[in-house]
Amino acid sequence: MKKVAIGVDIGGTNTAIGVVDAEGNVLVKDNIVTPSHGDINKYITELADAIKELRNSVTLMNPEVEVLGIGVGAPNGNYYNGTIEYAPNLSFKGIVPFAQLLSEKFPEYKAIALTNDANAAALGEMIYGGAKGMKHFVIYTLGTGVGSGIVVDGNLLYGHDGFAGECGHTTLIPGGRLCGCGGRGHVETYCSATGMKRTAFELLARDNATQSVLADKSFNELSSKMIFDAAEKGDAVALEVFEQTGKWLGQAMADTVAHTSPEAIFLFGGPTAAGEYLFKPARESMEKHLLPVYKNKVKILPSQLKFGDAAIIGASALVHKELEKYD
Amino acid sequence: MKKVAIGVDIGGTNTAIGVVDAEGNVLVKDNIVTPSHGDINKYITELADAIKELRNSVTLMNPEVEVLGIGVGAPNGNYYNGTIEYAPNLSFKGIVPFAQLLSEKFPEYKAIALTNDANAAALGEMIYGGAKGMKHFVIYTLGTGVGSGIVVDGNLLYGHDGFAGECGHTTLIPGGRLCGCGGRGHVETYCSATGMKRTAFELLARDNATQSVLADKSFNELSSKMIFDAAEKGDAVALEVFEQTGKWLGQAMADTVAHTSPEAIFLFGGPTAAGEYLFKPARESMEKHLLPVYKNKVKILPSQLKFGDAAIIGASALVHKELEKYD
Repeated sequence: MKKVAIGVDIGGTNTAIGVVDAEGNVLVKDNIVTPSHGDINKYITELADAIKELRNSVTLMNPEVEVLGIGVGAPNGNYYNGTIEYAPNLSFKGIVPFAQLLSEKFPEYKAIALTNDANAAALGEMIYGGAKGMKHFVIYTLGTGVGSGIVVDGNLLYGHDGFAGECGHTTLIPGGRLCGCGGRGHVETYCSATGMKRTAFELLARDNATQSVLADKSFNELSSKMIFDAAEKGDAVALEVFEQTGKWLGQAMADTVAHTSPEAIFLFGGPTAAGEYLFKPARESMEKHLLPVYKNKVKILPSQLKFGDAAIIGASALVHKELEKYD
Repeated sequence: MKKVAIGVDIGGTNTAIGVVDAEGNVLVKDNIVTPSHGDINKYITELADAIKELRNSVTLMNPEVEVLGIGVGAPNGNYYNGTIEYAPNLSFKGIVPFAQLLSEKFPEYKAIALTNDANAAALGEMIYGGAKGMKHFVIYTLGTGVGSGIVVDGNLLYGHDGFAGECGHTTLIPGGRLCGCGGRGHVETYCSATGMKRTAFELLARDNATQSVLADKSFNELSSKMIFDAAEKGDAVALEVFEQTGKWLGQAMADTVAHTSPEAIFLFGGPTAAGEYLFKPARESMEKHLLPVYKNKVKILPSQLKFGDAAIIGASALVHKELEKYD
């Protein structure tokens, strides 16, 4: 019997669905539109139909396959209640009892659970990725924003209300850059892909760096990938963006270590493709900021999840974690 | 049968020992000198003799009393290994297998355990104090430094190495005040009793505030108690010290909420006697810095542990926590 889990990743415009085997390989996958109509029941029906079709494409081919359940990663996903709560980028308003609605469509599964996307990434890392066997670790996801998932004693840290682990919204520089959440100086405003773009523009302005290749891009054109490509060609501004981003990230990670003392911090997302451009200054800065008792103990590691499928894989990992309860 | 636990608090110059009942009352207590001679075996023998004498003073009077075990709070105490590791303020060098040495003197107890003082305070709050029934909370201890203990799912967060929960050494202001640990801008340098004194001196200097009563004290004379007394009399500098300390503390606590999302944060220590002078700005600042999903959820509460005996009481709580393993 080959055991598989279904992972669903709900994004602002697209919902990705995949069937994932015990080694974290995506066997088949599909996408549906995350609607803007705000009708949750209609969306759940569409999603359930898409899941059933995808499931059948695997199980009809291979009757040896057992589907264990469905894991969902969603913005503002609350694991405790299975709800999506006031997600700013989704059209469903208020508190949506998502796991319950999905369970009504799939009464055959006892493992249907939901969490936010960064927590799902942490579970993916633990079940299939580089954190196998680790009991205490953290993952930072660097994208448009900075998300994080914290694992303590082999379990996700959810906290009192289900929303723990938002390291991207700790204060890095008091009174600093405006954050999408309304706060100031949050880690996310410096260490995300968007933060890197802001840093590039600050440096261009500071140095009047007309000779940089980044000086020919508008604010809305520039991407962290372009900054990486420029760094590879030795562009001084681009190199300084990585240096500075790594320093900030190291400071943020040191604060996380002082809270939870993990064995490792995994970095996930587009900017991590830059490798040592980012990891070297991050490592040095983290060590500099750490209390002596933590120094030279905490590994900074690239995520081992396959980038494009990581959200599906992470969501599917929730199924395995959920089934531990019944062991 | 009345059940009691023995609590031991090891400080730099003094070791306090107490017998604590199930309600957190200290029945009897004693002190011995924490020696500067560095001979751990000699000290353990002295400590064991003092514990036995104190225990006998209770059990001989009342044969109905059952002693459950011994809990120890010590600087740089590592719960996992029962060791005291490189404690800067103690004369015992390197890694001391403290719990093991003490167990050899008391083979009759299965519950002999050790943790650091802030973690002990968290346990005290949970077993006897204001955190009874809470599964997710944090305590900040404000004294010469700032310590912290983090409780997740009803257990202390120890992390990978046993040293998690050092919120006092997260960065509040990058490149800011020099910390005792060698770092810069740590929470401890702003929010401890010592930090308040430093703030007072900064304000005196900034405003040339010759009319403040604090202007007649030397740096080595000034205490946080004097600042509180001056605030009570309306001294503008003293009032601003509390206002500013509360703001900083609120920013630090918001970062802790973003990590662990607790139900409450307890404040413990001398400066908390100032009540709303400190709590009001701390509450307002924390709310200001919080991600919307956390706003108006997290209580800031004064510790319910009796100030003078809190360290003994907290250490004794470790015994009850330890015995849960055998339930």
